[in-house]
Amino acid sequence: MDKLKLIGKQTLKIESKPRIISTFSVVGPKEGDGPLKDYFDLILDDDLNGEDSYEKAESTLLYTSVTESIKKAKLKPQDINFLFAGDLLNQIISSTFAARDLEIPFIGLYGACSTMTESLCMASITMDGGFARNVIAATSSHFSAAERQFRYPLEFGNQRPPTAQWTVTGSGSMVLAREGNYPYITYVTIGKVKDYGIKDANNMGAAMAPAAVSTIYRHFKDTGRTPQDYDLIATGDLGKIGREITQKLLKEYGYDMYSNYIDCGEEIFDNERQKTDSGGSGCGCSAVVASGYIYKNMRKGKFKRVLLVSTGALLSTTSSLQGESIPGIAHAVSIEYGTGGDKA
Amino acid sequence: MDKLKLIGKQTLKIESKPRIISTFSVVGPKEGDGPLKDYFDLILDDDLNGEDSYEKAESTLLYTSVTESIKKAKLKPQDINFLFAGDLLNQIISSTFAARDLEIPFIGLYGACSTMTESLCMASITMDGGFARNVIAATSSHFSAAERQFRYPLEFGNQRPPTAQWTVTGSGSMVLAREGNYPYITYVTIGKVKDYGIKDANNMGAAMAPAAVSTIYRHFKDTGRTPQDYDLIATGDLGKIGREITQKLLKEYGYDMYSNYIDCGEEIFDNERQKTDSGGSGCGCSAVVASGYIYKNMRKGKFKRVLLVSTGALLSTTSSLQGESIPGIAHAVSIEYGTGGDKA
Repeated sequence: MDKLKLIGKQTLKIESKPRIISTFSVVGPKEGDGPLKDYFDLILDDDLNGEDSYEKAESTLLYTSVTESIKKAKLKPQDINFLFAGDLLNQIISSTFAARDLEIPFIGLYGACSTMTESLCMASITMDGGFARNVIAATSSHFSAAERQFRYPLEFGNQRPPTAQWTVTGSGSMVLAREGNYPYITYVTIGKVKDYGIKDANNMGAAMAPAAVSTIYRHFKDTGRTPQDYDLIATGDLGKIGREITQKLLKEYGYDMYSNYIDCGEEIFDNERQKTDSGGSGCGCSAVVASGYIYKNMRKGKFKRVLLVSTGALLSTTSSLQGESIPGIAHAVSIEYGTGGDKA
Repeated sequence: MDKLKLIGKQTLKIESKPRIISTFSVVGPKEGDGPLKDYFDLILDDDLNGEDSYEKAESTLLYTSVTESIKKAKLKPQDINFLFAGDLLNQIISSTFAARDLEIPFIGLYGACSTMTESLCMASITMDGGFARNVIAATSSHFSAAERQFRYPLEFGNQRPPTAQWTVTGSGSMVLAREGNYPYITYVTIGKVKDYGIKDANNMGAAMAPAAVSTIYRHFKDTGRTPQDYDLIATGDLGKIGREITQKLLKEYGYDMYSNYIDCGEEIFDNERQKTDSGGSGCGCSAVVASGYIYKNMRKGKFKRVLLVSTGALLSTTSSLQGESIPGIAHAVSIEYGTGGDKA
């Protein structure tokens, strides 16, 4: 038997360090008007992207980010062995319809807004096992498709409480390869489902924060690292409220997350000017921020070691209507570049 | 760089041969009245299983199959490193709510009714990479929950055309370990999404058959095996109509599937007596047939080499209402026992 690469309880050491050789991010007009606009590869003028429904539009975003990330890697679709993708829509139709057109062998995932790191976890495991030359991890979300599926018809014009988040319209894709001078994945920590009883679908930051805390805490315990070993720790889409809860709870566990921790949902919009309340959310949120702002700054040398922790709220309208609370999950991926290998 | 374990285009050689050390299947009363009843571990008297909704009932089925499969393996929940599971309900709530109560690190999957082999594929890759001591692959479905989500309210009493299938109420779970004298996984073939334009949600066998054909054909091409190398080839839930299409199409490709091929959906019910038209369907269908009939007959020596090919129809009500056709996907897993190792 080979020795186990399971470190501690939930963390996997990815010894072969699969490289993220290219990324692509496409976003809607609102995201393209936000603070991170200079980092996105493509900003749409029209969030329908030429389609006749928001759901079909979302699928074209995923198709675009995947095909463009392949082009940026100077590869062809047939060079990609497997696509790991998922999204928020019922039966992950954005991903499956994109996968139909891409003709890449497909593994469909569902981790709600944690899907970007869930797909990176599965992609890393597959690469490290020697099962592929190149794989893609991708996800998408769309404000108008998510709003009408999970909350109210858009025409209803419901009021938004200050805890509400704004689903990001966008898709991010990452191409992984076995070699090359690119940012690489060193550890992944797979999360547990956590539920502290929040039932308000307009307060997903509070619902997801315990899962983020659980996974981040576990990552530190399993690896022996601390927040200070990272240049940046980025949660997926907790928003301002979820980010504050996460900081406070991790402080109680003895981890200081006040100097180098951001939440992708809080950064992607100018919440006051853009009226996005607690911040952005959706699978696409951490996907485009990681593919854009984080990856591009790693390539420039600004961040050498980043912990990306996408966070998902595992509700459905059925579970909510039946009185269930909202479970959360988070998966963490450690990405490094220019650290001279893995010191842990 | 280690050598690639990707064989041909879509097949992975699982060199460490993870063992399926236990399985558990729980089914509803109708399945428990069918031809395979003697192979199920638990037959419910009441398909609500003491809950107040069909969705909550489905989640208890998954919880039961997972916990009972762990007990049968003489393990504890904390011995299971990761749970790979998914289901048909929106946002896979059967799986996520079960995962919440199980407290096992969780990877949520969505491959519609292909989820049993999708979860076995991801479980095999994770085991082979040395990332876990024990993992579980599981899935569930529930007739009443699926019917009202995908088709009509049950109270409506809609007529069923002869192409219709009956969603299986049940859940199957498999525990994988690194060693022991048990059936083991040797190859997995990951499928592409295939869509030949079927739009009728009451003819899913025809919608899924091309995906089954694609994956089975690819498995044979990649491994150099033929149907005659298997004692049994079992598709997931194509039903009678899909099974016939699959046989005919594979015959055109030169593969004779007339002597040792069954479809789990066709076998689980006595379609005439039980009025299940083309047969059973749902994630739970291939899960309980594989965990029951197939696994138990492998342990007895009746089948030495089985190719399990769960098949999924990737529709949502949204995609159907927007005029989209129904894409299909299938993943294949080669399970062997007593073959004296891998001859391919």
